Amino acid sequence: MVNAHVTEPHDVVDLINTKRHAGELRPDEIAWVVDAFTRGVVAPEQMSALLMAIVIQGMGRREIRELTAAMIASGERLSFTGLGRPAIDKHSTGGVGDKITLPLVPLLASLGVAVPQLSGRGLGHTGGTLDKLESIPGWRAALSNEEMYAVLRDTGGVICAAGSGLAPADRAMYALRDVTGTVAAVPLIASSIMSKKIAEGADGLVLDVKFGSGAFLPDLTDAQELAQTMVQLGADSGLQTVALLTDMDAPLGRSVGNANEVRESVEVLAGGGPADVVELTLALAREMLDLAGFTDVDPAPALTDGRAMDSWRRLIAAQGGDPDAELPVARETEIVRAATDGIVQRVDARAVGVGAWRLGAGRARPGDPVDHAAGVEVLVRPGDTVRAGDPLFEVRCDTPGRLARGLESLATAVELGEAAPTVRPLVAGRVVA
Amino acid sequence: MVNAHVTEPHDVVDLINTKRHAGELRPDEIAWVVDAFTRGVVAPEQMSALLMAIVIQGMGRREIRELTAAMIASGERLSFTGLGRPAIDKHSTGGVGDKITLPLVPLLASLGVAVPQLSGRGLGHTGGTLDKLESIPGWRAALSNEEMYAVLRDTGGVICAAGSGLAPADRAMYALRDVTGTVAAVPLIASSIMSKKIAEGADGLVLDVKFGSGAFLPDLTDAQELAQTMVQLGADSGLQTVALLTDMDAPLGRSVGNANEVRESVEVLAGGGPADVVELTLALAREMLDLAGFTDVDPAPALTDGRAMDSWRRLIAAQGGDPDAELPVARETEIVRAATDGIVQRVDARAVGVGAWRLGAGRARPGDPVDHAAGVEVLVRPGDTVRAGDPLFEVRCDTPGRLARGLESLATAVELGEAAPTVRPLVAGRVVA
Repeated sequence: MVNAHVTEPHDVVDLINTKRHAGELRPDEIAWVVDAFTRGVVAPEQMSALLMAIVIQGMGRREIRELTAAMIASGERLSFTGLGRPAIDKHSTGGVGDKITLPLVPLLASLGVAVPQLSGRGLGHTGGTLDKLESIPGWRAALSNEEMYAVLRDTGGVICAAGSGLAPADRAMYALRDVTGTVAAVPLIASSIMSKKIAEGADGLVLDVKFGSGAFLPDLTDAQELAQTMVQLGADSGLQTVALLTDMDAPLGRSVGNANEVRESVEVLAGGGPADVVELTLALAREMLDLAGFTDVDPAPALTDGRAMDSWRRLIAAQGGDPDAELPVARETEIVRAATDGIVQRVDARAVGVGAWRLGAGRARPGDPVDHAAGVEVLVRPGDTVRAGDPLFEVRCDTPGRLARGLESLATAVELGEAAPTVRPLVAGRVVA
Repeated sequence: MVNAHVTEPHDVVDLINTKRHAGELRPDEIAWVVDAFTRGVVAPEQMSALLMAIVIQGMGRREIRELTAAMIASGERLSFTGLGRPAIDKHSTGGVGDKITLPLVPLLASLGVAVPQLSGRGLGHTGGTLDKLESIPGWRAALSNEEMYAVLRDTGGVICAAGSGLAPADRAMYALRDVTGTVAAVPLIASSIMSKKIAEGADGLVLDVKFGSGAFLPDLTDAQELAQTMVQLGADSGLQTVALLTDMDAPLGRSVGNANEVRESVEVLAGGGPADVVELTLALAREMLDLAGFTDVDPAPALTDGRAMDSWRRLIAAQGGDPDAELPVARETEIVRAATDGIVQRVDARAVGVGAWRLGAGRARPGDPVDHAAGVEVLVRPGDTVRAGDPLFEVRCDTPGRLARGLESLATAVELGEAAPTVRPLVAGRVVA
């Protein structure tokens, strides 16, 4: 019963009881419990009970700010002053086919904005930026702080694994939340994301907060609340923050997986690629340019005139990758076809994400390997008219045993109907402090 | 991530999410999670998150019944058929100065009703029956099932420690609840108590459900809900169950502690003792006689004519105790006196309980020793008129360092006023199925 140590200023059971009854935790209590959990004085089973009470009873704005501050205080803080150019950060809450970081970072780098991207790996049906880039032979995700700074200085961008020094309390809490059903709650998601982003010390931050079936928080109202909470946390810490609310009901682009998402990103950098990927890349780029003070710069030409592509090649090479290497190709492909005629009403991002995950593109547990060649090509989008037998998905798999379960998830991913569906805008809203 | 084992029929995170959103858990889910927690497949941090969700979102009657059944199924079941007399069990939700088991068991034994009392130890401000009896030199709480049965057969009663074979899942869950702020919730309290009582296999059960400041659930409405839930659980399992709702706002009797509560119990068995202790002993005895089918037996004479005292002596001796031995006496005593004139409005059971605990009569952590001689004699009761300087409490302590903190809690335990207070009945209600 570690909580009975007389030298501790608080008893965790008292804090749990306060939150259980929807009370407000004081700043000293929040600071203590985060620190005591990190020190092992508050046990995981105590923290998870407190987290569940927070998930159900919520937290006020002040409590969320204190929680964020406590997680920042658990680790180091970075700084990107001295680069001679503004450093603007970007974060997406994650989705299916969301490879936007890949074209976006070199695009901004080519326009004189430094973009430090401390990224993560995928878990469950959403992919991870590092997993995608690791399909490029030689590319290295793990950089020391010095290496990260050097790549950023030399190429204008860097995409690497977040080191363990940034908000370690958040890391420990996230691992606990992941196995205790306490992930999907605005105060905890907001403080988890923003503690790392504030500790990174960029000059501005653009958030891509997703809603729809493939998102963390499918409901638009929840996503709005999350966006507002994060923008406010940024403002409270002196980090200029803007959020776009973007639709993740259908997969983004045509490719879902790892190597195939890199291929699609290179198409965008070559001036082509799917319209929605280009649209979102440019929308986020404009917000980042705006925060950097480059209000009159149009990012679109840099995608077509080769500047962004040049930056991409430098960025990949700086981390050991060969931008000209062949990317892995799956041994098996299979086509999923329409069973009837109809107009595509929906392509369910979640079902596609789960399908790609089961095919081997994602992982069920942290630390599992991913299959870089596995994935799904989405051949239709809402509004398309199809005939029975037309291809809907091209499925790519390297492990024959995985094929059946992947196909099972894709079987119900496309919804056909008789009328033309209402097409929703990709960017549904913008949130500023 | 133990929850990801593919051989398990459920994922605990799904169950946690169901309850987080106030959903209903299915019977197979409840049976699985209790069993999987006992097997170590569901981790403590996962179980505590589920428990907190249950505490806040509640459980329906069917879920509570399934939870109780799952905890019963985790261990052995006893049976007291073959004694040639009805076996009637009793349980109190615990209070301050609640020594009723001590006179009640021999009283019933002397009237031909077998009373198996599998009791617990105290924690925090409420005392435990076993701690009290262990102040009798030689008395032994730990009996095998065979010894327990033999003492019950030979003396008509037995008070001993609950063995580890009865509802082990409840034992493990209670240890977790104790450190995670998930104790005080009706579904969990009811299923914890009733799983052990149903597994014991008596012919009837009388519950003493307390409310007021010294009780587990101070609010009468909560206590009523708990009583109704437990009576219903008994009925659903074929165990005849009756509950009395009794007032625990003031300490029961005059003595609070261990050895001094045994002394007071012996006074009651000798035909004397405080009126409230006698009243509650007889009220519970009548309910137990009723369940045993002895509807026309008046228990009162057995307290005054020596029959109950003879049973007590046999019962104590059968477990190695010497009923004539001197009980421990504290080295230090101190008197707490009234600061002003007035009429006693309240004697706060909780403050007295905390005081006795701090003096050494109770324990902060399971497994800690208790001081058998320490305790408090309560010298006034609501309605008494006192003058400044009159004694309110006699404080007994064997560890000088503990005296100050005990006195601190007692300093505010008596509330004085000018008008005569409303005296509430000790037994406030009766709940049957």
